[in-house]
Amino acid sequence: MARNSIGKNLILTSFGESHGAFVGSVLDGFPAGFKIDIQQLQRDMQRRRPGQSNLTTSRNEADEVQIVSGVFEGQTTGSPITFLIANNDTKPKDYDHLKDVFRPGHADILYQTKYGIRDHRGGGRSSARITAGWVAAGSLAKQFLEDPTQNKLPIIITAWVKQIHTIELPKPNQIPSKSKIEESLVRCPDISMSEKMIEAIEKAKSEGDSLGGIIACTIENCPIGLGEPVFGKLQAVLGQYILNINAVKGISFGEGFHVANLKGSENNDSWKMSDNKIGTITNHAGGIIGGMATGEPIYMEVAFKPTSTISKEQQTLDASLNESTLSATGRHDPCVLPRAIPIVEAMANLAIMDFVLEMNFNP
Amino acid sequence: MARNSIGKNLILTSFGESHGAFVGSVLDGFPAGFKIDIQQLQRDMQRRRPGQSNLTTSRNEADEVQIVSGVFEGQTTGSPITFLIANNDTKPKDYDHLKDVFRPGHADILYQTKYGIRDHRGGGRSSARITAGWVAAGSLAKQFLEDPTQNKLPIIITAWVKQIHTIELPKPNQIPSKSKIEESLVRCPDISMSEKMIEAIEKAKSEGDSLGGIIACTIENCPIGLGEPVFGKLQAVLGQYILNINAVKGISFGEGFHVANLKGSENNDSWKMSDNKIGTITNHAGGIIGGMATGEPIYMEVAFKPTSTISKEQQTLDASLNESTLSATGRHDPCVLPRAIPIVEAMANLAIMDFVLEMNFNP
Amino acid sequence: MARNSIGKNLILTSFGESHGAFVGSVLDGFPAGFKIDIQQLQRDMQRRRPGQSNLTTSRNEADEVQIVSGVFEGQTTGSPITFLIANNDTKPKDYDHLKDVFRPGHADILYQTKYGIRDHRGGGRSSARITAGWVAAGSLAKQFLEDPTQNKLPIIITAWVKQIHTIELPKPNQIPSKSKIEESLVRCPDISMSEKMIEAIEKAKSEGDSLGGIIACTIENCPIGLGEPVFGKLQAVLGQYILNINAVKGISFGEGFHVANLKGSENNDSWKMSDNKIGTITNHAGGIIGGMATGEPIYMEVAFKPTSTISKEQQTLDASLNESTLSATGRHDPCVLPRAIPIVEAMANLAIMDFVLEMNFNP
Amino acid sequence: MARNSIGKNLILTSFGESHGAFVGSVLDGFPAGFKIDIQQLQRDMQRRRPGQSNLTTSRNEADEVQIVSGVFEGQTTGSPITFLIANNDTKPKDYDHLKDVFRPGHADILYQTKYGIRDHRGGGRSSARITAGWVAAGSLAKQFLEDPTQNKLPIIITAWVKQIHTIELPKPNQIPSKSKIEESLVRCPDISMSEKMIEAIEKAKSEGDSLGGIIACTIENCPIGLGEPVFGKLQAVLGQYILNINAVKGISFGEGFHVANLKGSENNDSWKMSDNKIGTITNHAGGIIGGMATGEPIYMEVAFKPTSTISKEQQTLDASLNESTLSATGRHDPCVLPRAIPIVEAMANLAIMDFVLEMNFNP
Repeated sequence: MARNSIGKNLILTSFGESHGAFVGSVLDGFPAGFKIDIQQLQRDMQRRRPGQSNLTTSRNEADEVQIVSGVFEGQTTGSPITFLIANNDTKPKDYDHLKDVFRPGHADILYQTKYGIRDHRGGGRSSARITAGWVAAGSLAKQFLEDPTQNKLPIIITAWVKQIHTIELPKPNQIPSKSKIEESLVRCPDISMSEKMIEAIEKAKSEGDSLGGIIACTIENCPIGLGEPVFGKLQAVLGQYILNINAVKGISFGEGFHVANLKGSENNDSWKMSDNKIGTITNHAGGIIGGMATGEPIYMEVAFKPTSTISKEQQTLDASLNESTLSATGRHDPCVLPRAIPIVEAMANLAIMDFVLEMNFNP
Repeated sequence: MARNSIGKNLILTSFGESHGAFVGSVLDGFPAGFKIDIQQLQRDMQRRRPGQSNLTTSRNEADEVQIVSGVFEGQTTGSPITFLIANNDTKPKDYDHLKDVFRPGHADILYQTKYGIRDHRGGGRSSARITAGWVAAGSLAKQFLEDPTQNKLPIIITAWVKQIHTIELPKPNQIPSKSKIEESLVRCPDISMSEKMIEAIEKAKSEGDSLGGIIACTIENCPIGLGEPVFGKLQAVLGQYILNINAVKGISFGEGFHVANLKGSENNDSWKMSDNKIGTITNHAGGIIGGMATGEPIYMEVAFKPTSTISKEQQTLDASLNESTLSATGRHDPCVLPRAIPIVEAMANLAIMDFVLEMNFNP
Repeated sequence: MARNSIGKNLILTSFGESHGAFVGSVLDGFPAGFKIDIQQLQRDMQRRRPGQSNLTTSRNEADEVQIVSGVFEGQTTGSPITFLIANNDTKPKDYDHLKDVFRPGHADILYQTKYGIRDHRGGGRSSARITAGWVAAGSLAKQFLEDPTQNKLPIIITAWVKQIHTIELPKPNQIPSKSKIEESLVRCPDISMSEKMIEAIEKAKSEGDSLGGIIACTIENCPIGLGEPVFGKLQAVLGQYILNINAVKGISFGEGFHVANLKGSENNDSWKMSDNKIGTITNHAGGIIGGMATGEPIYMEVAFKPTSTISKEQQTLDASLNESTLSATGRHDPCVLPRAIPIVEAMANLAIMDFVLEMNFNP
Repeated sequence: MARNSIGKNLILTSFGESHGAFVGSVLDGFPAGFKIDIQQLQRDMQRRRPGQSNLTTSRNEADEVQIVSGVFEGQTTGSPITFLIANNDTKPKDYDHLKDVFRPGHADILYQTKYGIRDHRGGGRSSARITAGWVAAGSLAKQFLEDPTQNKLPIIITAWVKQIHTIELPKPNQIPSKSKIEESLVRCPDISMSEKMIEAIEKAKSEGDSLGGIIACTIENCPIGLGEPVFGKLQAVLGQYILNINAVKGISFGEGFHVANLKGSENNDSWKMSDNKIGTITNHAGGIIGGMATGEPIYMEVAFKPTSTISKEQQTLDASLNESTLSATGRHDPCVLPRAIPIVEAMANLAIMDFVLEMNFNP
């Protein structure tokens, strides 16, 4: 299989399966001497953890992270940092019926075809449970980027739910506050929209169905010139990190696909100076030009498909490749977006920190 | 700068600037004993080359590729293949005015800020001229993938213009033929739409403006299971390759951003057997599930911004970071999409071949 | 720090410190469907484990390996395989005196200078204890390479002690048997020499001193052409893996440094055919020419320095960089070579398997 | 084939064959704004070029380097730097007899077996001629490391011939001066030894034979802590770079293989302070402990085999794998060491600069 590591200077290696002893990750390249805030790390885990509300899967995991290397007396040592997260609430029996049938929209059948073997329990390696290890690592990257002693300005990454099914927020005039986002069960900063989204999810859940949506994400205070302008374009590396998140089907920057409808004279952002800093008057580009940060906030949108596992009956193939039907039981989210917020943030933090370390090359 | 190489098993290294002696690339990892079709390579270069119609820049380059290593008596030897493409029609004088002013939408100012130096002639390293070296390498990957002696079924990658400005083709019922696409000056397979697009480009050009659009791309006969399911998801690697193409602002797969509006029961593709092969009844997923190929055609859309260099007057900064205006002269495309078609295909061919080589690991 | 991963197709990521909760590793890229022999794995761990005889450190670790991912019902799944080895017999108190003084020959002072922090307990990350995770991974690689269903001929890697201090075996006429090697406490296949070596080690131990030596290693049945002939030369990659083993100061192939004294007519190996296979009449080259395997056994020698931690008094610096003296206590090996045998084999098995996977590219 | 690139932060990609249009390389990751000394670059090429004395091959190449990218108005731009070196004095006809016979000690037969095709002209890709591209890149790395504005102290790498055949210099008390080394045709800093070596080479040449030897190399002023202590140990990365040089059969550091004969109390280097800098009283370690630089000069020795191509008759196989004999004609060096000096220095400079860039991470 390979390709379970990502990053050049800050390398995340992911391991584990949904119902093994642990999921986890190794984070290599993190600078030494950084004081870790374990409470913050654990709070970030809580945002991703299953069972946090009745909108999410009922699997109940504390998701307490054990750091077993690379940290000494509360500080990073420069050695690889290993995160272990126990799989406690495993009910492999619940998944016994998945041994014999392949879920539509799921990779089970592809694992079986490609590898000739699969761990069918809870989706095995293809379960989004493995992102627990990414969020743990991402929390450290976030702490580093937000630390004003590391960067002249704290680099702040904020994601929120912009759309669930047909309920859609307009593009914001300003970046919503993190507290506003966290107040909402679905992590949508507009209260009335948030309520409508919750209703829609509950309705889909009651129908045995699921919903997709769009997450928006901003990155503030990216150093000007961050990114490497040929095959390390900022949008390409952010794309690579984020398109690896389960259920993502698209990513766009700035005006995104709407850019197709614009003329150059409408889409170009004029350069300006303000506060002795380079910037642009408008920000159609979403903070990236020529693969590098312009200094304006980076803005991206990420499309998530509706959860594939639904309890509505679907046509499919069984383990013998004969036609069959499936009404899935087991535990799953009717809409992944609320729990995907910290995952998008984690991947963005890891991608940006990788570049920040590299930028120190050429002071 | 670094990050001028891309790929794991088939590694493309890009070099060169718009007005240096050569642009080019090195392709490492190509298997030995493959007979190269030089005419085909040259035809692929023609599709990208400037000056091919009056819709494109008037810079006139033959773009004849010189292969200076890795090929012996017409066959690959397994050694790295080096492509040189001379820059002949260089008019650096035309760009003298760009020494002193930074173009909106362009990376000039970011290069200058980040590196403290830049080759201003024709955009230097940030010019899309460097993609000539990518298209040369991509042509070899294409020849390999389309060769039935290398793959049970030829893997065929087809890109076309789906939208320019507001003129938009519907999603096709079937993949358009390559000859149909090439008949059109803008590489749009629908003749009447193509004519409207040409008119729109000509109008924008006459106004000193530029247009954006969307390219669609399909990949047929991808082996089932192609892609590596954690940090080498097929969509993530295709995304990484294609988001590195100049002017790209978004990429999506299957239903793309429209997936947000769908329910699981609408978006899931039921598994089926046909001709003794696994497949899906519908293809909302665009041929990729869990990061691996389903056997159905891969479908992706790529958003391109309108060309940043326009002759309309724009507000900007000069080299001393004072406010200024710019009406760009020099040569540029009023719409990059027609010439971007072979670039998208090249990057997709390179990405897919990288995975095909890896798949041979686990026979 | 970074650079805690090694390999291109089969990637070993190492983590852990001497006195943390676990040392371990993640092995990514191992093919799916391979039945693991856990008993064999545990036997390989026993050969490296401390406390196995009174010639080794008295630290007593069972070194039972817990595999927490990538293996399902006894078979590899293609997912990354994670090995955890608990640190049980930790006596951090024993190392308290090392907080305040820097050992000659040890990296303590360099860690402190470079990172501004170090885990001083038992050498922390610089302890050879971390090689437990390498040996676990290497055992799987060995099982793969020795499996005749994976390779036409089992690839067999054998290391033995060739020299300890001044007691030196001549170059062997034939590769010693593994059982003969294991019969000896010092892993030297010549019984009388082995006894002399044991005496020498015991004497050094009683004097509070330590001994160096040379390990020889052969690789049989390497496929002809294994290795990549420019920057992936077989000797360079084997060198990279093995020079990363703690205490190694040199590596050589075939005639090694003696090659300096030879003429071309003496050193060249004439090509021959035997049993319808290419080979050479002599094997001065040690099985590698032009960076690729010739089909003859690969022969290499590896020089190990005497253990740096000794109880004899030595001059050094203390934590305040003032002059000081040190007579080390704590637990350490008077000679690392007997326990280094499985480590050399593990690294060689991992390096060779990485190339074997790559060779499947070009069938 | 792949693996024609080396380095993590400063990546050298090698291309070309002995009798193609060009050999060359691409150097990616070199910082922007560095003023290149072209005369120095050309002087470094002269030291490697064939035909520089009657001790070397009679192939006559000016080896003028054409830099076709990455340098603008004499300064690096941060973009990849491409070096082209024309193959002018190609006499492919001289090698026609090598089409039909495989030279002992050469990789011809392995290329043919592995790839099913080879460029037989002058050894093709396996010719040491390709190192011209390495020396060009290495010269830039050298200029960077020796520049006091880039590093607090210039990092100086010096290689010399320590042994040819049985004529051997003792380990030096001090590092020989570069001018002393260059005064000697064989690059041995001891005049009387140098004369004996020249005689020995001339004698071997007249007998149609060739000689091996040992090159010593020092690195002065390496920053303390340079190197990454697990799988990026300084000796492992230097080993990887240098074992990839054609004809190298071994590498050792400090006491090298002699370390086997030493006790810990003899081999350990006591830490000391001098001039407010950490260092060691002795330097048995050769400047590297725990994979990191100690601040003392790095000392390494590299063993080169005698040139494989000799005119003495040898037994071998022909292209049909039948027994045959060969008395090679064509042009070759009777001893490669004098011309290998700049190659060893180039690879060491590239390896060290790669680490220096990385060290800037953690200031």
